[in-house]
Amino acid sequence: MKLVLATKNKGKIAEIKEFLSDVKGLEVLSILDFPEDKIPPIEETGKSFEENAFIKAFTVAKATGLPALADDSGLEVDALGGKPGVRSARFGGEGITDAERNKKLLSLLENVPSKERSARFRCCMVLVVPPEFEKYVAEGVCEGYITTEPRGSHGFGYDPIFYLPKYGKTMAELTRSEKNKISHRGKALEKMKEIIRSLVND
Amino acid sequence: MKLVLATKNKGKIAEIKEFLSDVKGLEVLSILDFPEDKIPPIEETGKSFEENAFIKAFTVAKATGLPALADDSGLEVDALGGKPGVRSARFGGEGITDAERNKKLLSLLENVPSKERSARFRCCMVLVVPPEFEKYVAEGVCEGYITTEPRGSHGFGYDPIFYLPKYGKTMAELTRSEKNKISHRGKALEKMKEIIRSLVND
Repeated sequence: MKLVLATKNKGKIAEIKEFLSDVKGLEVLSILDFPEDKIPPIEETGKSFEENAFIKAFTVAKATGLPALADDSGLEVDALGGKPGVRSARFGGEGITDAERNKKLLSLLENVPSKERSARFRCCMVLVVPPEFEKYVAEGVCEGYITTEPRGSHGFGYDPIFYLPKYGKTMAELTRSEKNKISHRGKALEKMKEIIRSLVND
Repeated sequence: MKLVLATKNKGKIAEIKEFLSDVKGLEVLSILDFPEDKIPPIEETGKSFEENAFIKAFTVAKATGLPALADDSGLEVDALGGKPGVRSARFGGEGITDAERNKKLLSLLENVPSKERSARFRCCMVLVVPPEFEKYVAEGVCEGYITTEPRGSHGFGYDPIFYLPKYGKTMAELTRSEKNKISHRGKALEKMKEIIRSLVND
């Protein structure tokens, strides 16, 4: 079975391909393997991670006629009522760096005591399968706290300010394989892999 | 792991319990195993199968603190623009029998030629897992045609007027085990079972 990853992010493509490499009979492609004019532009206008992931997966499944997998994820900070949420990647403005974005988030939490800095990374993966466009969804959550300053150099995004009490480290202080085991994306992908395996065997 | 089925339908409970019986380490309950006042009344006000299944699963997961599984399904008739859809169980009125409901549907298709009588059963299963209420979704679709008169005595609902070209039979002419293999609910449950198995092993 062929599966198309609905992303152009080469880091993510490599990560997911590696994760799915032990599924026999599966060939993993991405939208980079198709001519640019074959996939219509995708606007992430959804109000939830799931809506955004569905928009991406459905668009690619429809355009290619192949099963398509997309994810959308972000950070939910309880003291900010769940923000930045679906706006995680754009929080603080479009053109700014991860470091600037983290600084902005920390400034909003300046007077919030450590116990009330709980947060979680949430990832929603959606698989859409033509011709009937059946939809499969798997979510993964990773609980933690927002630090008062960035720490660690691995990963990306909010990883340096996301503290995991169980490990005594921020997400950015974990190695890639440690992160894959406990991260929101790793957890969602682990479940989705079972669905994919089952589809390949149909 | 304990799993609660968000249904009071004893036939469905028996069917799903049987289907999940080979998942080691899983104990399957239903809302019938809880005091009546523990589960708030559930209103299926959703606009899609998924919304309705989510409402049921989330309500039960929240009330019991246990993973909860719900499904919602129905018939989509192309010549009727996808109706009865989410209204399948109530189509034609609340108090009428399955036979009356089928008669009503056939009358709406009276002048529709056989080639244009395509339809599908669609089932959406949703699993919600506390404490973070992660959501998992699996869909199953079963393609067929609406007959001109009912045939067969197995199953229930629209089964006697749903024809499967591949089998030369209506859904109501299949045995329960034949139906489980190819039905929309069987297909969705097969995928969801892999998710459940993976959660039990976490």
